Amino acid sequence: MSRFLAEKYQGMEPYTPGEQPQDRKYIKLNTNESPYPPSPKVIEAINAEEVSKLRLYPDPEAKLLVQAMAKHYGLLPSQVMVGNGSDEILAFCYMAFGQKGICYPSISYGFYPVFSEIFGVKGQAIPLKEDFTICIDDYKNVGKSIVIANPNAPTGICLTLEQIEEILQANPNDVVMIDEAYVDFGAVSALPLLEKYDNLMIIQTFSKSRSLAGGRLGFAFASEELIEDLNKMKFSFNPYNINRLTMLAGVAAIEDQAYFEQCSARIQKTRAYTTQALQALGFTVLPSMANFIFAKPSAISGTEYFTRLRQAGVLVRHWNKPLIEDYVRITIGSEEEMEALVQITKEILQV
Amino acid sequence: MSRFLAEKYQGMEPYTPGEQPQDRKYIKLNTNESPYPPSPKVIEAINAEEVSKLRLYPDPEAKLLVQAMAKHYGLLPSQVMVGNGSDEILAFCYMAFGQKGICYPSISYGFYPVFSEIFGVKGQAIPLKEDFTICIDDYKNVGKSIVIANPNAPTGICLTLEQIEEILQANPNDVVMIDEAYVDFGAVSALPLLEKYDNLMIIQTFSKSRSLAGGRLGFAFASEELIEDLNKMKFSFNPYNINRLTMLAGVAAIEDQAYFEQCSARIQKTRAYTTQALQALGFTVLPSMANFIFAKPSAISGTEYFTRLRQAGVLVRHWNKPLIEDYVRITIGSEEEMEALVQITKEILQV
Repeated sequence: MSRFLAEKYQGMEPYTPGEQPQDRKYIKLNTNESPYPPSPKVIEAINAEEVSKLRLYPDPEAKLLVQAMAKHYGLLPSQVMVGNGSDEILAFCYMAFGQKGICYPSISYGFYPVFSEIFGVKGQAIPLKEDFTICIDDYKNVGKSIVIANPNAPTGICLTLEQIEEILQANPNDVVMIDEAYVDFGAVSALPLLEKYDNLMIIQTFSKSRSLAGGRLGFAFASEELIEDLNKMKFSFNPYNINRLTMLAGVAAIEDQAYFEQCSARIQKTRAYTTQALQALGFTVLPSMANFIFAKPSAISGTEYFTRLRQAGVLVRHWNKPLIEDYVRITIGSEEEMEALVQITKEILQV
Repeated sequence: MSRFLAEKYQGMEPYTPGEQPQDRKYIKLNTNESPYPPSPKVIEAINAEEVSKLRLYPDPEAKLLVQAMAKHYGLLPSQVMVGNGSDEILAFCYMAFGQKGICYPSISYGFYPVFSEIFGVKGQAIPLKEDFTICIDDYKNVGKSIVIANPNAPTGICLTLEQIEEILQANPNDVVMIDEAYVDFGAVSALPLLEKYDNLMIIQTFSKSRSLAGGRLGFAFASEELIEDLNKMKFSFNPYNINRLTMLAGVAAIEDQAYFEQCSARIQKTRAYTTQALQALGFTVLPSMANFIFAKPSAISGTEYFTRLRQAGVLVRHWNKPLIEDYVRITIGSEEEMEALVQITKEILQV
């Protein structure tokens, strides 16, 4: 830390991304990446001619991409905004709508409290129920903005559309952000609620279901007015936030619906296989609708399982935190990767 | 605007990027892009194999790129940080070092006051001298952070290394940011001052001299402690801020020094040609060390020249603001583009 840093940031704890060790080859099941490459259309779209156009600024309004998304989801282009990953969208939301504070589940995406700190927003973590589900009644008339990941992370557990609607109705004067980073693996999007609720903000990403984590592409869907607010943030922070190649990748990805569906279906099938295999080994596995599972071994601790997997060359995510320290979050990789995980788990448990 | 937007942002005026009209083909001299494509090594580096790896997150520490930059400039990797364009770096600087306010020249990059507003930083615009130069004495013991573009925009006028050192010495307890977006066209970088001054922050971009405006890549060079502060901001805002392909482009660009020097030399030569040609037509042209010139016609107004150029298919930048309304900023394009500009100017002036 320098002697110049603003006081308010001196004690700030930044977010810790999943590790990316380079010491050996790992089966990497720790950052919820897709095991499948982006659509072949993405690979076609980024050709030498387009790379040579990098001398030119990208379109700050990202029109082609916004239009493609709007068409795909049956929205107006003015209801769509693009971010440098959904993290940037969330940051703009905290800035624009954090005035009265923001609440979120106590066990959820680790970035929610970090954004509170950096933007001086009063954050409030609301405990989950004992079964790791969200108690809807705790989010009624809270008098501040709300952000909920649906499915939630790292649990993978979903709210129903009816439950989200209850929250929207109970907070008509506050923005309810539904972070749908993991929605494309069997959960239901809140998109149909957009036409009824002007306080709904939906946030999505191309990092998981569209295999574009390395491209950095996130979206917001909301009323025209809320999107206008977010654009005000963007044009006061970083108007050229999306690079040219990522825009092309995004358009190509959204247009290849068949490939998207095929990847999503494979991941759901592999998730079912992995869940059953671990349950058969005595694990508790929470009911996940995401591209990961949150699983607790019965014979050894979460820490030991995490450590032994790492020694065997498998990276998963583990948090040394109350309530979840017995669990590890395992990304759903390819069929072969998950078979290897199950086999290595058997060896660790000596069964 | 929605009814939810935080009060403090309701009157905020966002930055206005240069226009990108699509109604016809223009000679585009309005956003200081390079007329030359990125290095052929950049085009080689972004191949189908790398595009298929977009399923994976980028390295949040951007190690390869940081190391390449550190090596190139003879710095430690811990003295280098990477941003999603230099705008993102500037934003982090305002957040981290804006506590006591930030001052900047009254005629300079239009984003400086916008950052003040979005981050609640007290901004202070310090007038230029009548000849559009910066008065060094105005930046002594100011009791706040300082940001100066060198060369300045839109004037193109430079400070010497000695002048920058005077400012650094006169403000030992405040961060002095030198925004070197345009430094590679004949100006002198403040990099040699880094080892002597722990309050110096240098900001650069690959948008101009490296022909990567569409890739979004900016850099900060400073003491380890200042860089640590900026990384704290980044890891609390958007850890994966640089996409995978831009990292590859950046490494390839920095390694092709010959191509970089060739492009820079051509632009300087074309700048000299354009300056002389416009002077011969009665223009006042400020002495520019950037990839643009700031020029005032003698026979017609700045507004008329801008408008007539636009009608003739040439885009330049014009501000309807006191002191500079008689000038237009003209990006140095290719030899052919500047010959066309001169020819069209002759037609407009009927000479």
